[in-house]
Amino acid sequence: MSDLDVVRLDPAPDRFCYAFGGREPVLRVRPGTVVELYTEDCFGGLVRSTSDLPSQVCTFPYLNPVTGPIHVEGAEPGDTLAVHFADIAPARDQAFSATFPHFGALTATHATAMLHEPLEEVVWVYEIDRARGTCRFRPRLDGTGPEVELPLDPMHGTVGVAPAAGEVIMSITPGAHGGNMDTPELRAGTTLYLGVNVPGAALSLGDGHCRQGEGEVCGTAVESAMNTAVVIDLIKGGGPAWPRIESDAFLMSTGSTRPLEDAYRISQHDLVGWTAGLTGLHRLDAYQLVSQTGLAPAGNVVDTNYTMVAKLPKTVLGGTRAYDGLHDHLRDRAAEYLRQR
Amino acid sequence: MSDLDVVRLDPAPDRFCYAFGGREPVLRVRPGTVVELYTEDCFGGLVRSTSDLPSQVCTFPYLNPVTGPIHVEGAEPGDTLAVHFADIAPARDQAFSATFPHFGALTATHATAMLHEPLEEVVWVYEIDRARGTCRFRPRLDGTGPEVELPLDPMHGTVGVAPAAGEVIMSITPGAHGGNMDTPELRAGTTLYLGVNVPGAALSLGDGHCRQGEGEVCGTAVESAMNTAVVIDLIKGGGPAWPRIESDAFLMSTGSTRPLEDAYRISQHDLVGWTAGLTGLHRLDAYQLVSQTGLAPAGNVVDTNYTMVAKLPKTVLGGTRAYDGLHDHLRDRAAEYLRQR
Amino acid sequence: MSDLDVVRLDPAPDRFCYAFGGREPVLRVRPGTVVELYTEDCFGGLVRSTSDLPSQVCTFPYLNPVTGPIHVEGAEPGDTLAVHFADIAPARDQAFSATFPHFGALTATHATAMLHEPLEEVVWVYEIDRARGTCRFRPRLDGTGPEVELPLDPMHGTVGVAPAAGEVIMSITPGAHGGNMDTPELRAGTTLYLGVNVPGAALSLGDGHCRQGEGEVCGTAVESAMNTAVVIDLIKGGGPAWPRIESDAFLMSTGSTRPLEDAYRISQHDLVGWTAGLTGLHRLDAYQLVSQTGLAPAGNVVDTNYTMVAKLPKTVLGGTRAYDGLHDHLRDRAAEYLRQR
Amino acid sequence: MSDLDVVRLDPAPDRFCYAFGGREPVLRVRPGTVVELYTEDCFGGLVRSTSDLPSQVCTFPYLNPVTGPIHVEGAEPGDTLAVHFADIAPARDQAFSATFPHFGALTATHATAMLHEPLEEVVWVYEIDRARGTCRFRPRLDGTGPEVELPLDPMHGTVGVAPAAGEVIMSITPGAHGGNMDTPELRAGTTLYLGVNVPGAALSLGDGHCRQGEGEVCGTAVESAMNTAVVIDLIKGGGPAWPRIESDAFLMSTGSTRPLEDAYRISQHDLVGWTAGLTGLHRLDAYQLVSQTGLAPAGNVVDTNYTMVAKLPKTVLGGTRAYDGLHDHLRDRAAEYLRQR
Repeated sequence: MSDLDVVRLDPAPDRFCYAFGGREPVLRVRPGTVVELYTEDCFGGLVRSTSDLPSQVCTFPYLNPVTGPIHVEGAEPGDTLAVHFADIAPARDQAFSATFPHFGALTATHATAMLHEPLEEVVWVYEIDRARGTCRFRPRLDGTGPEVELPLDPMHGTVGVAPAAGEVIMSITPGAHGGNMDTPELRAGTTLYLGVNVPGAALSLGDGHCRQGEGEVCGTAVESAMNTAVVIDLIKGGGPAWPRIESDAFLMSTGSTRPLEDAYRISQHDLVGWTAGLTGLHRLDAYQLVSQTGLAPAGNVVDTNYTMVAKLPKTVLGGTRAYDGLHDHLRDRAAEYLRQR
Repeated sequence: MSDLDVVRLDPAPDRFCYAFGGREPVLRVRPGTVVELYTEDCFGGLVRSTSDLPSQVCTFPYLNPVTGPIHVEGAEPGDTLAVHFADIAPARDQAFSATFPHFGALTATHATAMLHEPLEEVVWVYEIDRARGTCRFRPRLDGTGPEVELPLDPMHGTVGVAPAAGEVIMSITPGAHGGNMDTPELRAGTTLYLGVNVPGAALSLGDGHCRQGEGEVCGTAVESAMNTAVVIDLIKGGGPAWPRIESDAFLMSTGSTRPLEDAYRISQHDLVGWTAGLTGLHRLDAYQLVSQTGLAPAGNVVDTNYTMVAKLPKTVLGGTRAYDGLHDHLRDRAAEYLRQR
Repeated sequence: MSDLDVVRLDPAPDRFCYAFGGREPVLRVRPGTVVELYTEDCFGGLVRSTSDLPSQVCTFPYLNPVTGPIHVEGAEPGDTLAVHFADIAPARDQAFSATFPHFGALTATHATAMLHEPLEEVVWVYEIDRARGTCRFRPRLDGTGPEVELPLDPMHGTVGVAPAAGEVIMSITPGAHGGNMDTPELRAGTTLYLGVNVPGAALSLGDGHCRQGEGEVCGTAVESAMNTAVVIDLIKGGGPAWPRIESDAFLMSTGSTRPLEDAYRISQHDLVGWTAGLTGLHRLDAYQLVSQTGLAPAGNVVDTNYTMVAKLPKTVLGGTRAYDGLHDHLRDRAAEYLRQR
Repeated sequence: MSDLDVVRLDPAPDRFCYAFGGREPVLRVRPGTVVELYTEDCFGGLVRSTSDLPSQVCTFPYLNPVTGPIHVEGAEPGDTLAVHFADIAPARDQAFSATFPHFGALTATHATAMLHEPLEEVVWVYEIDRARGTCRFRPRLDGTGPEVELPLDPMHGTVGVAPAAGEVIMSITPGAHGGNMDTPELRAGTTLYLGVNVPGAALSLGDGHCRQGEGEVCGTAVESAMNTAVVIDLIKGGGPAWPRIESDAFLMSTGSTRPLEDAYRISQHDLVGWTAGLTGLHRLDAYQLVSQTGLAPAGNVVDTNYTMVAKLPKTVLGGTRAYDGLHDHLRDRAAEYLRQR
């Protein structure tokens, strides 16, 4: 495979980052490179059993480690970084989820501040069966409910670049730079487009999930270290204001802010503009088309910003392809890589 | 079909309602009855071409007419009304959508009050092709974009009962009584469960859509008069706090309020409680299971309350069936009705 | 007092209302009439000691009784009803406050739905010292804190008219019709302007508070039955979209919805328009003037809608008077009434 | 003035900061020092007439410059930095305000994303009359409205320290570290308490306003360069989670997030806890006392986070003094400084 550059990035335990921005790159790659990398789970690998309560074994702000930053040669502010997920594979035999004090959508939090004591902190252990492609939910508390075998649907909760304006933002926060969007849409086979804010872009990622419901209502997914391969590419110019995602079937825009309706507005506004730009439709016609054909799943409703995703089936685009068909090209490169590794 | 009661309800033009609550029934049925009914579109049928601007041809509060109320014999406060959608068929050859001044998610509104002038008011006409099962989007404004043929996916935006506490609520408002939830999930083949607040329940429905994106971002869907058949049934007791929906594949809870994260919280909270009740799981275990397997699409983000839907795949329930399998029973009755009509 | 019509309204215990809209008037008056009336407290007078927990002694929906409706002769939809508070006097020697399960700003509620158990339900008794003009806060729970004597500042939490569009809305909900705004600004000496929606306006009021903090954070104020005198007047036309308040020093606009920023937007939007209309300023100049001189206190952040108040000092208006100086006129009438009664 | 250390800080034009965190100190002081400093206005001094439109003369992210950071010797994470405002004096004869495209509360913004074009961008010039203590509003647009002389009430919109977790946050964002809270409460005579996150605290301030309405509804106040004197002090430990303010009459807690009700919740939650801690009251008794006596004005409803202020009159505290009476002590030092300078 003469034309596939493949490099591996295995951070030393003390080289994980906990923020986007303000950190020296740990790897430099050219556009087109496949990067195989290891990501630690959101607990930093410190939750290993039901007795490892996150509030006891984890230390703020050393939460949600990300692998990177990766410097992409030639990337300049205003450009578009494309990150295609070729493969996301759980790196251990167990994954973990937990309630965390004052974190989650159905509990008082530091922002939705209340006089309640925290909900009980509980850790769930999921055993991963690679052969069957499943992980197993096991009830932890009193009750008579069933164990449930769930399909693996691995994804990354956190992917982003250095923010604009020199900001340094904790890895648990999603925003215009990407970050902790926690949408299950970021699975293998999709391409993420991020606006570049600093030379080299400074891509980092982490927070692998074996699977996740929309909204991540309890605050954590089926959290797992991952072995992941991404194809990284660069488009000069055209940097989107907010992260965009493309799958074989959908164009997706994201918005991350509060309240949730503003996250919805951002994502829909971007999708309307994207649709108009691709098709030549007037913006109000694009508004109409998106209104009748778009999907709008929640990403997360638990993080420091909430994330909504706006999805448009590519079938309504009249054959136009986003970014000149880059997604198809990257999917092909990913397929070639997977065949050959 | 000896055991199928089928009645027809065709309201006279002056017998449509514009509110839930406070109106005498137009029909009385026994549980188990199939009701065939006609619903007018949200414009009251007054938008018939691109020159019929809703703000000129419609008169507040005569918007969003609903057919009903239907009195269900034996229904008492605290009971659960089940409404199974057997069939939803567009009643005319054209459907309409529009922007409406200061209404929609990407415009200033009366609640999100701003100093902007309204966006341009535009009407789109969709021609319906029953044979192909499609409706056709045609751009209205300057631009080069494509016409797009879209699959029909008929649904009702507005279904509800008389509210609690003697309230009378405009039909454009969704809430605990149902109402204008505007979720595409209310399609044929699903069962809606509503808590009964007054003797007879006082069921009304309307606001048919040939199809609708999640969130209904421009404020209107592909609006159409409908010929609809519902199977109505009654469960004594167990009235849910918020409307619930069941399809063959999913249990769904809804929440309708503002801000959108509270609509999300209501829907997820109800789904967690429903899951715990059905499976025997402790509430925190149910919280965990929903977190990893639930979906969370927007219903509407444009009406006087916003609606979120929380969906759980029935495959994770360990074989338990909601309401003793009533959905399956109603689906069978609907199938029998459709065979025989 | 030849020209002062004074009538008294003492509702029988079974004649209180619990909603705005849909109820026959209990009194008919001409514009200019002084109405002396009795209002029951929000608990319906059923909380009489620390052992009367509201969740046990009160029954939904029989909460927050209002006195009325009062039919104002000549009032037509589109008119402006003016209600000047001449006097608000606690009717008993004790007032009560309480936490109520899942109600308040620092607790999970039915809309901000969470998995927490309710906070402890506690009743506080305030002894009223009319001579000193105070009520006394007494700690109820373990702790070493002080008793505190607080100034009386009586006000009505709930004042409104029949809503538009034939709606019937629970008295605990504030909105464009007024209702349960729960702002301490509604004290004696102020005039409330309400848009009329039905012939006769159908004015009701209740929910007297001996005093209240802004936001009413725990969910209830120092709740008291009241003997209140209002001067009622009518302006033909000009009905404001949202309730307005005038004191000797301020013009105020209110907004009641969720989220709280939308309540802020509504109130500021109305105040900007009101200022432009009174002064002749361009709307953007009025926006600027309000930006630099306006106040923005919370009304309530606990009810089914939240209320914000936008206040403009009358000193910046260049001598213009709202509604042709009606507030001054009504204050004079109130003074005459108080001298003569 | 033997015991008063007074130092002066006049940043060179290229030494202003545009963020909190991540910058080397420009001054080191011991606790107790009076710092006289110059702050530039939010436009960087580039708006000098009505023809200097901010969107044309200002360059993102060089907005809202702050003076600092000031390293306070001995300050360690977890400590409490006290900043007493001795004097805030406009540094020029003119101040400026403006609408800015897609910024403000009554306009579509980047977060409340809509399809509207921006409102008209307009600059207002305020002439400052130091002798009269006023600044003059002059209408800019067509209309017949009055010029209005407004009292000066100088304050700082932006005061803060380096954030926790190594974050670097744009100066236009308010948060737990302080920042761009834009509350008119930060006037001379008040003390601001900030939790220290990094050694030396890294205090910066700017964004002087000649005066500001609550909410800063159009997005900018009467913006002015300032000559300001602060007394800086340090309390070991006790760092508050959110900025607190003390005046002679009030204790105040702030909260900065979205939606606005969460900013309200944070501020009220902190004030309840502060009150309980100072008085010995049980938390629910403090909740009750704050509910009946607290004020809740908006700070800003326009910045990247919204700010609410919770105010408690010190008269209800039974004589207890916050931070052992530090505010009184700093006010005395400020008075001594003002006498002697």
